[in-house]
Amino acid sequence: MDPLGQAARRAAKTLALTSNDHRNQALHAMAGAVRSRVDDILAANRMDYTDGEKHGLGAVLLDRLMLDSDRIESMATAIEAIAELPDPMGRIIDEWTRPNGLTIQRVTVPLGVIGIIYEARPNVTSDAAALCLKSGNAAILRGGSECYRSSNVVHDCIRTGVSEAGIDSCAVQMVASQDRDAVGYLLSSMNEWIDVVVPRGGKGLLKRVQEDARVPVIGHLDGNCHVYVHESADSEMARDIALNAKMRRTGICGAAETLLIDRAVAENLLPDVARGLSMAGCEIRGDESVVAIVSDAIPANESDWSTEYLDAIISIRVVDDIDAAIAHIGQYGSGHTESIVTEDPLAAEKFFREVDSAILLQNASTQFADGGEFGMGAEIGIATGRVHARGPVGANQLTSYKYLVRGNGQVRP
Amino acid sequence: MDPLGQAARRAAKTLALTSNDHRNQALHAMAGAVRSRVDDILAANRMDYTDGEKHGLGAVLLDRLMLDSDRIESMATAIEAIAELPDPMGRIIDEWTRPNGLTIQRVTVPLGVIGIIYEARPNVTSDAAALCLKSGNAAILRGGSECYRSSNVVHDCIRTGVSEAGIDSCAVQMVASQDRDAVGYLLSSMNEWIDVVVPRGGKGLLKRVQEDARVPVIGHLDGNCHVYVHESADSEMARDIALNAKMRRTGICGAAETLLIDRAVAENLLPDVARGLSMAGCEIRGDESVVAIVSDAIPANESDWSTEYLDAIISIRVVDDIDAAIAHIGQYGSGHTESIVTEDPLAAEKFFREVDSAILLQNASTQFADGGEFGMGAEIGIATGRVHARGPVGANQLTSYKYLVRGNGQVRP
Repeated sequence: MDPLGQAARRAAKTLALTSNDHRNQALHAMAGAVRSRVDDILAANRMDYTDGEKHGLGAVLLDRLMLDSDRIESMATAIEAIAELPDPMGRIIDEWTRPNGLTIQRVTVPLGVIGIIYEARPNVTSDAAALCLKSGNAAILRGGSECYRSSNVVHDCIRTGVSEAGIDSCAVQMVASQDRDAVGYLLSSMNEWIDVVVPRGGKGLLKRVQEDARVPVIGHLDGNCHVYVHESADSEMARDIALNAKMRRTGICGAAETLLIDRAVAENLLPDVARGLSMAGCEIRGDESVVAIVSDAIPANESDWSTEYLDAIISIRVVDDIDAAIAHIGQYGSGHTESIVTEDPLAAEKFFREVDSAILLQNASTQFADGGEFGMGAEIGIATGRVHARGPVGANQLTSYKYLVRGNGQVRP
Repeated sequence: MDPLGQAARRAAKTLALTSNDHRNQALHAMAGAVRSRVDDILAANRMDYTDGEKHGLGAVLLDRLMLDSDRIESMATAIEAIAELPDPMGRIIDEWTRPNGLTIQRVTVPLGVIGIIYEARPNVTSDAAALCLKSGNAAILRGGSECYRSSNVVHDCIRTGVSEAGIDSCAVQMVASQDRDAVGYLLSSMNEWIDVVVPRGGKGLLKRVQEDARVPVIGHLDGNCHVYVHESADSEMARDIALNAKMRRTGICGAAETLLIDRAVAENLLPDVARGLSMAGCEIRGDESVVAIVSDAIPANESDWSTEYLDAIISIRVVDDIDAAIAHIGQYGSGHTESIVTEDPLAAEKFFREVDSAILLQNASTQFADGGEFGMGAEIGIATGRVHARGPVGANQLTSYKYLVRGNGQVRP
């Protein structure tokens, strides 16, 4: 696989010197190629889907895997939206002058070569490739075996676009082998060629990547997100946010899994909140206090508090106060996204200060935990690690920087 | 060693909630404790030094190891200088409002627990501890066995200071065992407790850390730095910068190891540049053209171009033009620091754009590659990796961030 790594490094070096216009030209050509080959992509996807059914893939995975012409058009428009983003490279992110007259600038540069390991979703092929290309990085993609036919056709379109723009087509490569060992090789033996690995998939994949990688990893393990209804919450807002955070889409990592509510308002607010969830088809698992208030709640187990259901199930707990809520999130949370519903700015500040998660919201749904919703255009994932990037990983997070220092003959005393 | 990791995580959680004033109080107490125990530190250091001589440590290592009262005073003032820095935590580094009214802030937070593995230099004990504490991080230190007695007394002073300020004394812990296996354990089994490892030492240590670490590493491998004298260079400036970059201190990673000079000006400028270096006691190894011009130059081997001498030796090569200089640096450089001497702004811009190193300078000595010289107060090292931090790693580079999102009831459509 080293020829692949070498080719990626070579491509990364030329990419680092391209202009934003040049890279955008490639992105538009990629979008065009995707549109012109809708039928090929659909045909490949049908085969992947049939295989998936045969192998007993679950409904969630099958839905992620499935492409129709609308979803393919979304892939193309997503590439175009990434082209519209400001240039992530060459941004002056800091600038100052030293007493000795040296001026120092910190300027963004690409990371280099990014390895992306993903499962099931063929659209990650184009999203990830486009984000890497936009930010001047070479990409090595390793898609899941469930969608390898679809991903291969999409990758063909990407190569076509990149080549049409006169950029080294090794800027976006795909690991061909469907062998599970390809992942291992990518993670360990290629550390000379890959600067960072971004895993995107289920817990099993993420865990394996974080354990085996010999290169830095930007990934997230869990999205066990919380909505906390503070005693000063507006009741309607609490109901609407809880419902949206849980039920808008249950399968995304920003979906809420646990609702915490202050004891002082539980009897008043919880019935309405629970009714909204129940009517939307959500199963409610609660602690003793919840079960006493909500008739159709079933008792929650200890394990419920740390479970990412990714399904129409919510666990609800009554807490004594904001400190208890913060402690609960500290104990069971995964550091992804938490929302406080409160009219009290001091409570919000305390929550923002003391909860250690990538994204904290006041009076808004946890489902906003998304690069697009943050205005980053697109994301390659949401990082819960603390190193390099945290939260949505968009084009700007796929950069490093260098220092440019201008003098007029300064030597160090 | 898990109790150590758990204690560090616990301390990190409380540290993350301390105020800048509170942390500064601890830093000043640390400096005071170092000053009050100068004699103890000196006594311990004498034993380390004697052992080092017995075990045949080289002159460079012995010099790094040796403390006198001036050097100890410098340790104390360095801690105080770190206290004077602005608060690295809670900085709003980005802020914007979305069309739906959500306001988003990106705010710095500590990284968490930082493992620092270092060799020989007892002053790293206090520098690293102070930088970690200033930025709200807990530190686990693992000093080299050559200086363990000195480091232990310094660590005692640190604990005293931290405790005096009422901060959990596990904020700065030291791995007691002098066993080499302690490093392995720190690198692999402690990945649950350590967020990032910073190695500081020789190539052997750095290589081992980068190979064995199961946690992200911020480190540098080599400082094979270049000075490139462009054809438009001012001749006196070229001489002064070459001399300073090489000879001011030869043992630091920002010291120049190779001088490149344009053919067009080699005959004119090189004799003067070489005379300056020779008179300062520097050995010159050159390519054929250099040997033809400089009488006391000896022929360089291929391996010279990739050697970090850290000594009074320089390799000099005549290049055809700026492209050849950039290609040489790309092939042999280590991505640390390079300087171009030129009066031509376009040449400087080309050099800045096309050379892929952490620090690029125009008309200034490479010896400015230093967190202190950059105005960062102090540094824990210079990173040549591309992920998280690149270049000098100061207090601000020891932070992560979180997103704070404020709404008024927004749910996601």
